[in-house]
Amino acid sequence: MKIGVIGGGQLGRMLALAGTPLGMNFAFLDPAPDACAAPLGEHLRADYGDQDHLRQLADEVDLVTFEFESVPAETVAFLSQFVPVYPSAEALRIARDRLFEKSMFRDLGIPTPAFADILSQADLDAAVASIGLPAVLKTRTLGYDGKGQKVLRSAEDVVGTFAELGSVPCLLEGFVPFTGEVSLVAVRGRDGETRFYPLVHNTHESGILRLSVASEDHPLQSLAEDYVGRVLKQLDYVGVMAFEFFEVDGGLKANEIAPRVHNSGHWTIEGAECSQFQNHLRAIAGLPLGSTAKVGESAMLNFIGEVPAVDKIVALDDCHLHHYGKAFKVGRKVGHATLRCSDMATLQDKIAEVEALIAG
Amino acid sequence: MKIGVIGGGQLGRMLALAGTPLGMNFAFLDPAPDACAAPLGEHLRADYGDQDHLRQLADEVDLVTFEFESVPAETVAFLSQFVPVYPSAEALRIARDRLFEKSMFRDLGIPTPAFADILSQADLDAAVASIGLPAVLKTRTLGYDGKGQKVLRSAEDVVGTFAELGSVPCLLEGFVPFTGEVSLVAVRGRDGETRFYPLVHNTHESGILRLSVASEDHPLQSLAEDYVGRVLKQLDYVGVMAFEFFEVDGGLKANEIAPRVHNSGHWTIEGAECSQFQNHLRAIAGLPLGSTAKVGESAMLNFIGEVPAVDKIVALDDCHLHHYGKAFKVGRKVGHATLRCSDMATLQDKIAEVEALIAG
Repeated sequence: MKIGVIGGGQLGRMLALAGTPLGMNFAFLDPAPDACAAPLGEHLRADYGDQDHLRQLADEVDLVTFEFESVPAETVAFLSQFVPVYPSAEALRIARDRLFEKSMFRDLGIPTPAFADILSQADLDAAVASIGLPAVLKTRTLGYDGKGQKVLRSAEDVVGTFAELGSVPCLLEGFVPFTGEVSLVAVRGRDGETRFYPLVHNTHESGILRLSVASEDHPLQSLAEDYVGRVLKQLDYVGVMAFEFFEVDGGLKANEIAPRVHNSGHWTIEGAECSQFQNHLRAIAGLPLGSTAKVGESAMLNFIGEVPAVDKIVALDDCHLHHYGKAFKVGRKVGHATLRCSDMATLQDKIAEVEALIAG
Repeated sequence: MKIGVIGGGQLGRMLALAGTPLGMNFAFLDPAPDACAAPLGEHLRADYGDQDHLRQLADEVDLVTFEFESVPAETVAFLSQFVPVYPSAEALRIARDRLFEKSMFRDLGIPTPAFADILSQADLDAAVASIGLPAVLKTRTLGYDGKGQKVLRSAEDVVGTFAELGSVPCLLEGFVPFTGEVSLVAVRGRDGETRFYPLVHNTHESGILRLSVASEDHPLQSLAEDYVGRVLKQLDYVGVMAFEFFEVDGGLKANEIAPRVHNSGHWTIEGAECSQFQNHLRAIAGLPLGSTAKVGESAMLNFIGEVPAVDKIVALDDCHLHHYGKAFKVGRKVGHATLRCSDMATLQDKIAEVEALIAG
């Protein structure tokens, strides 16, 4: 079976590493000459709207999936004429727009921060009056890793901010005094079978994920599964989805979904019986899903900007390096390490060791 | 770092899958147009003696290694002029010739079956008179998976057998009434650091490995480590080596070595902290070695001729499929499954389930 992937970054790279042992081959559509997934399959170097190359991809592969949600809707619509695309165009349409996403949460009875659609500075002023400050203004589409958003703390911050974010459709979200950020990675098969990984506690820095720790036995696991299950069913979703929540007052408020394999699920490569990458491929290929059970206690640390010295990382016991083969650049995710230990205390010690390497 | 691999079969494929997360890239020299490692790196399609392509490979990569020991000595000598090659030409020279190999065992005080160098039918007749029957006549070089050998049980079997094996240099080995076959996979770094995986119990069928079970706590582990350690030191070996033994009367007799990653070590991908593939790459790249400790209890079953239905294999809990992406052909290794379980009793049950799938 040959899988087409829109995007050839580290997520595509790890999909190929997980799918090759299933006998799958891969083709990546990515305009970047140095797409880091390219060594693991065919590289169609073209823009995402290039219909000639999209048609070529559709002709060559059995299925198409993607590694980022901001794929143009026209790309998905075009491909869907010729080849199955998972997740569906409808799932993408919702997930890529914060207004549609938040509205879906509300419609499904899933708690989420107060929000308002902002199409002008006047809309923003009115919404701030109603929702209050602090609040966060986010572009409805194309935001990632903290890009395309601004925290508004005072009346001054509000002045001219709609223009500052490019005068594009935005969402104002009430600030949530959260005690933690968690994500639930789930997978749903073509037949509707659904499995959930353990809740992961995430730590961000400057809007970029730094550390994910898979929880041992989280008291909110079943509540999170209930919420995520509603969304998966609503969208008749196929594949892996990551769902980010804020922990607030012992409950959960939905932040956003990612209709794809997700950074907070990278620990599953070593830390779960079947990784999020293989489970995504199993789901879209119509194969039985794999076990989401943990193997030991795991955490993932991102390498941002650069990968520490490889000889130092691999010298650490319980540490598994994932170097993405990308050029180093400030703020860019260029690798990660998974720690898999027998118990949480050891895991905490090991996290400190990797953090010391990162600090250099 | 870019690694050149002589041979592009499943061993090269699994090396690439293990090395990519270390940030390594791969080039495979293999004349086969459908070399199954090719999708994971650059494919130099050329004969092993093709000096133009060998030179190209040497220019492109930082290190060269190989996935089979019958690489022509001239190939290794040629490459070694331009680029480091691991394991060394000397290790290959010994490992690829059963006479050199067995003589080394004897010189190092490692028990091995009685043997005699056979260069003619007259040599064979004399050796049979001295060693006795049953015995096994094997070509000194190029044998694998039971090919290039004949079991001699009666005087009749001896007649004309030297010609039958091609009138090439052979070794006669006394038959050993073994109670089991075990292998020890070891890895030695450039600095001499050496690590051993747990002894593996192997079951062959028609000369081809069928089943490998990693032992829980084998009474002969330290004896085997002693023997293998002597060979590694003698050869100043760098990389992974597999050492096959017969279990005889509660002791070990050396059968043969493979100067490379080995089929009986495939279980380490899921079953050990660091796989034989990653440890081989760490060793040759001069990186610290990874832990050879087990993760649970593991076994590996080979898929020979064909891979059973993928949906049935992946539906089994604790089962990890490795499909090599090769055309199915009688007697050909086309994939394997690793079972990793919490205890030996569960493992035995799971082995039976996979065997039932193989039996169809």
